[in-house]
Amino acid sequence: MSKWVRAHTNIALIKYWGKENEEFIIPKNNSLSLTLDAFYTDSKVTFDSSLKEDQLILDGEKQDSIALKKVSTILDIVRDKADFTDFALVESINYVPTAAGLASSASGLAALAGAASAAAGLNLSSKELSRLARRGSGSASRSIYGGFVEWEKGTNDETSFAHPIDNADWDIGMLFIIVKQAKKDVSSRDGMQRTVATSPFYDGWLATLDQDLTDIKISIAEQSINKVGAIAERNALKMHATTLGAQPPFTYWTADSMLAMEAVRTLRKEGYSVYFTMDAGPNVKVICKQSEMSKIKKALMSYFDEEQIISAKPGPGIQVLENE
Amino acid sequence: MSKWVRAHTNIALIKYWGKENEEFIIPKNNSLSLTLDAFYTDSKVTFDSSLKEDQLILDGEKQDSIALKKVSTILDIVRDKADFTDFALVESINYVPTAAGLASSASGLAALAGAASAAAGLNLSSKELSRLARRGSGSASRSIYGGFVEWEKGTNDETSFAHPIDNADWDIGMLFIIVKQAKKDVSSRDGMQRTVATSPFYDGWLATLDQDLTDIKISIAEQSINKVGAIAERNALKMHATTLGAQPPFTYWTADSMLAMEAVRTLRKEGYSVYFTMDAGPNVKVICKQSEMSKIKKALMSYFDEEQIISAKPGPGIQVLENE
Repeated sequence: MSKWVRAHTNIALIKYWGKENEEFIIPKNNSLSLTLDAFYTDSKVTFDSSLKEDQLILDGEKQDSIALKKVSTILDIVRDKADFTDFALVESINYVPTAAGLASSASGLAALAGAASAAAGLNLSSKELSRLARRGSGSASRSIYGGFVEWEKGTNDETSFAHPIDNADWDIGMLFIIVKQAKKDVSSRDGMQRTVATSPFYDGWLATLDQDLTDIKISIAEQSINKVGAIAERNALKMHATTLGAQPPFTYWTADSMLAMEAVRTLRKEGYSVYFTMDAGPNVKVICKQSEMSKIKKALMSYFDEEQIISAKPGPGIQVLENE
Repeated sequence: MSKWVRAHTNIALIKYWGKENEEFIIPKNNSLSLTLDAFYTDSKVTFDSSLKEDQLILDGEKQDSIALKKVSTILDIVRDKADFTDFALVESINYVPTAAGLASSASGLAALAGAASAAAGLNLSSKELSRLARRGSGSASRSIYGGFVEWEKGTNDETSFAHPIDNADWDIGMLFIIVKQAKKDVSSRDGMQRTVATSPFYDGWLATLDQDLTDIKISIAEQSINKVGAIAERNALKMHATTLGAQPPFTYWTADSMLAMEAVRTLRKEGYSVYFTMDAGPNVKVICKQSEMSKIKKALMSYFDEEQIISAKPGPGIQVLENE
């Protein structure tokens, strides 16, 4: 039945960067993320035989057919499984701190997968939910779970899904530095596609991932913020290096991204356990101890405005909300 | 006999990045550069049997033994060729616009090679001078010649030297953007060594160089600033990508470097023929039409101070100065 479902965003520490199969969103490599509490999406789906097409109301505004594309992919799979053909009204609210510009397809598509399957009366396991969310957006497969999550690449639709590996109930958190800039030039989908197709560095990227994954899983088990951070930072730098070799080359980094990375390196020299990661955009995420987060935020405020820095703690997996 | 010899700096458009042989400075790949008029070094060498060791006076100041190391490498080779053992007094003046912080080992070691061989009475061909300069600093091998120059990697001391490929007597120039920052963390020597030894991207870098070299030589012959610039920019991005994969990772880019690259991309969208290249440091070099240089400099002044932007034209090869 129609229920509000909440999913949180996740930030990859070992990046998803490149698809083996575009249609089913089977990735080239396993990735590993941390789910965070600060950004999330609530979604409700109502199947309605009187509707002439799927509708998406996002933050109170009706969306056009382009925004609907990923949504309808998931709705189609759910309709197929439940064996009916009704169109759906999807209501969705992104909880993103003001001006963050961090519309998260990970939390959005995960919440949708949960809400759509609930509304269709499907009783999906977490694994099946992860597979379903993956079809809308690869990284959404990881937002089904809280804490540290690994997305096993698998080889096909059945075998590609995420599973939890650690509940992150230890001294780790993340600060989001929201840098100022216009809409990004290259979407993550286009960016990874161009990189896989043209960058001479893509093979080198893939070749080092097994080691990074092994190392970070050991470091998570050891609850070592310094090891986890260093591996994540290195992995992010490698991912971004691949884009510089693409044809034509591109980068998600801006001058402010570079300033944020320099700030993190400076704070590290001063003794803080701080590391950065970046995704397909200019914002910088700072991996640090939760216990040092307020001091680090204060130190970062000599580089950025307070409202550009958002604190996040490890967040939970997908939830059906008790009260609407 | 003792003569003042002048050599100009050069900026690689296809980068030298990694040595096959550390002792003889045999590079991993051919590189291609443009010699420029704005930065140069004058050097004079006086062999003197009364000296107890080699001495280097740079810009009027006596240098310590660390600064002497590359210099003595070249002096030793010259003494060996000329079959004598006198130590030398080396006087050297770097002509570098104020505050540029661009002490160029390319012009310095090339001028030294010319001055030392002249002082020893050796009558070396340009090819032999290029080989000699290479032993002090790889990029110095290219500063023997003016215009566009290719350094053939060769396979050993005899076969690794530069040769001129175009006198650059067409509408091309370079603007140097001197960004503000402290001494660089990682020298070019250490940076390329660490990259060759540890970066998963180094093979990808090498694999694309033959194509870049072929393409840029065709484009130079066509006198196409847009093709030459685009190839050089792409090549520089690839070189810098390799450092992000090194272990530990590093970058020569600062926030101001990124701002300069963004400025160049913006000017390009506005219709200028502008492209950037960067070496093992934070400064950004802008490849452009000489005929548009003053307009571009003015446009760049909305990002940087006037004294941070230095104009350069194609420069000549090594010269013995008529009058001291």
